[in-house]
Amino acid sequence: MKIAILPGDGIGPEIMAEAVRVLRALDLPGMELHDGLVGAAAWRVHGHPLPPETLALMHACDALLFGAVGDPACDGLERHLRPEQAVLGMRKELGLFANLRPAKVFPGLEAQSSLRPEVAGAIDLMIVRELNGDVYFGEKGMRETADGQREGYDIMSYSESEVRRIAHAAFRTAQGRSGRLCSVDKANVLETSQLWRDVMIEVAAEYPDVTLEHMYVDNAAMQLVRAPGKFDTIVTGNLFGDILSDQASMCVGSIGLLASASLGAEQTAYGTKGAYEPIHGSAPDIAGKGLANPVAMILSAAMMLRHSFGLEAEAARIEAAVASALNAGALGADLGGTMGTVAIGDAVLAAL
Amino acid sequence: MKIAILPGDGIGPEIMAEAVRVLRALDLPGMELHDGLVGAAAWRVHGHPLPPETLALMHACDALLFGAVGDPACDGLERHLRPEQAVLGMRKELGLFANLRPAKVFPGLEAQSSLRPEVAGAIDLMIVRELNGDVYFGEKGMRETADGQREGYDIMSYSESEVRRIAHAAFRTAQGRSGRLCSVDKANVLETSQLWRDVMIEVAAEYPDVTLEHMYVDNAAMQLVRAPGKFDTIVTGNLFGDILSDQASMCVGSIGLLASASLGAEQTAYGTKGAYEPIHGSAPDIAGKGLANPVAMILSAAMMLRHSFGLEAEAARIEAAVASALNAGALGADLGGTMGTVAIGDAVLAAL
Ligand SMILES: CC(C)[C@H](C(=O)O)[C@@H](O)C(=O)O
Ligand SMILES: CC(C)[C@H](C(=O)O)[C@@H](O)C(=O)O
Repeated sequence: MKIAILPGDGIGPEIMAEAVRVLRALDLPGMELHDGLVGAAAWRVHGHPLPPETLALMHACDALLFGAVGDPACDGLERHLRPEQAVLGMRKELGLFANLRPAKVFPGLEAQSSLRPEVAGAIDLMIVRELNGDVYFGEKGMRETADGQREGYDIMSYSESEVRRIAHAAFRTAQGRSGRLCSVDKANVLETSQLWRDVMIEVAAEYPDVTLEHMYVDNAAMQLVRAPGKFDTIVTGNLFGDILSDQASMCVGSIGLLASASLGAEQTAYGTKGAYEPIHGSAPDIAGKGLANPVAMILSAAMMLRHSFGLEAEAARIEAAVASALNAGALGADLGGTMGTVAIGDAVLAAL
Repeated sequence: MKIAILPGDGIGPEIMAEAVRVLRALDLPGMELHDGLVGAAAWRVHGHPLPPETLALMHACDALLFGAVGDPACDGLERHLRPEQAVLGMRKELGLFANLRPAKVFPGLEAQSSLRPEVAGAIDLMIVRELNGDVYFGEKGMRETADGQREGYDIMSYSESEVRRIAHAAFRTAQGRSGRLCSVDKANVLETSQLWRDVMIEVAAEYPDVTLEHMYVDNAAMQLVRAPGKFDTIVTGNLFGDILSDQASMCVGSIGLLASASLGAEQTAYGTKGAYEPIHGSAPDIAGKGLANPVAMILSAAMMLRHSFGLEAEAARIEAAVASALNAGALGADLGGTMGTVAIGDAVLAAL
């Protein structure tokens, strides 16, 4: 059980410390933690946000626990040197193509959402976002038009096999939930979406126990406001997934509570190799102050135990401890409380 | 004052009838209404959703009042024959590049939103969406990969002049409002967005009275849930605008209340040539039943008077009548009321 510990920038190190405390408290046999640098932290030392040292570590481990990257000091750098590129590089280099983002309101925290409590309280959905294709990784650049102007371009594309593998991941996810899958695309405008829809329908034949429905992305953004509780599993491409998963997360209240898993095809001795990270960013404004909410990071560790190490009972134990700590009032400033990073970590540990 | 009346499909004809009644009641000198077919209604007669007859009419008129298009009978058709293509064709053929979508909660209707009343009540924003470029109109198709699979692709692009003209439209819009403009892009990933951002900054120099800020689209989708009241004017590309404007609309409660204007560069004797339409669709399920809410269509007519005919007082008069009718309880089923299309039209006419 080799785990890469990649705290990254901003509040990353503080919240990672709490997740590590929780993992150690479980006393898992054979657990090894290996520290690595990523983002601005790596750029400062190695001149690159995802240096070869870090990539080698990622390849050598069974799972990656990732804090957050991003640092205002890097704002002026060329794009390929900016911290966020480490996230894209990691996803692509390790073939992490399936991003799972659960969104569910913790009991007692309905009042945190800007949605009405009865709307927020009904949310229990999982977004399965494709991470290795789409307009993110196609050819892109600046070219000159016939009349001598600059024109920026980015090619959006998906091949059948790229869609097929995320389709299987999504159908399996839906099987483990309510059996309802909503595929989101823009097939009335995009050829990429038309192929996406065709392949989803083709793969659906292998999962007779799952009901597949299709929704245009603009409508999905609307329905996520109107009645987010109606969704169960959502599958969508990289770009639409970026937007909708952030929207869905915020419906739940604080983004300080939400974890994510990025899974690939590679199997280790324990389970699927994957990277686990909070959906929030590095929050440079509160970094180093002991104010950050470590819950999303702790829940990311739980997702890791579940998906990469098959330790469902231990994952559920962490999740239950978090839920009971939150319910007992272990709330940081993001949730209108006064507790700091370590105090929240303490509360979770006490509830374990 | 030549106005093309294009009711389209589904509930289009019913709601258009109410907008026409309101326009006639104003007794505007020289107003001529010219009927045309569009969407499935045009396809049934001419075999195309945007036939040459309709295009000629659009070119000949000073403004277009557009109902809604879309009909399940067309689902199996090739994409270029489907009703929604008429919308894209109209925007491109007439060079309607600036889509203005106001979102504001009507006094007394805060309870309609799934957002908390205090969050919903604070919303008063305008989205300026680019309509002629982006991944909508770039080269697209199906190709074969090196290993013989199908791959769908769509080229996203923006040239400097395309961004510049929407930038000017947005800065001017912001000047007429609070002077705050938020440009939404994905410049951490897309070259198209990088150019977008560069040009926005360049154009900002000409509008020292407007404050420009930049936001990534995923963050914007989040902030539109968390605190939509913080936005004033938002400018964004065609694809992000499609998603965010639908999200913002739904924050307001019913989409049966929201109008939009699509403006081009062409000036007529009266003002900017433009098309005006509700943001909702053709709602085939309730078509022909007299249940549709005509408010968005009536408000579209008001926007037309303002932008294409410079009749600000008349536009404001319609808007005030709508607000007072709604406040007095002229609510359709979409808002928990019992009034039908004609009754709501009557109520607006009575309040004029
Ligand atoms: C940092 C950025 C490139 C990234 C993305 O767009 O995928 C982030 O927003 C995310 O969702 O993980
Ligand atoms: C019908 C569709 C092509 C259109 C779009 O995507 O622009 C619609 O969603 C809109 O927003 O007007």
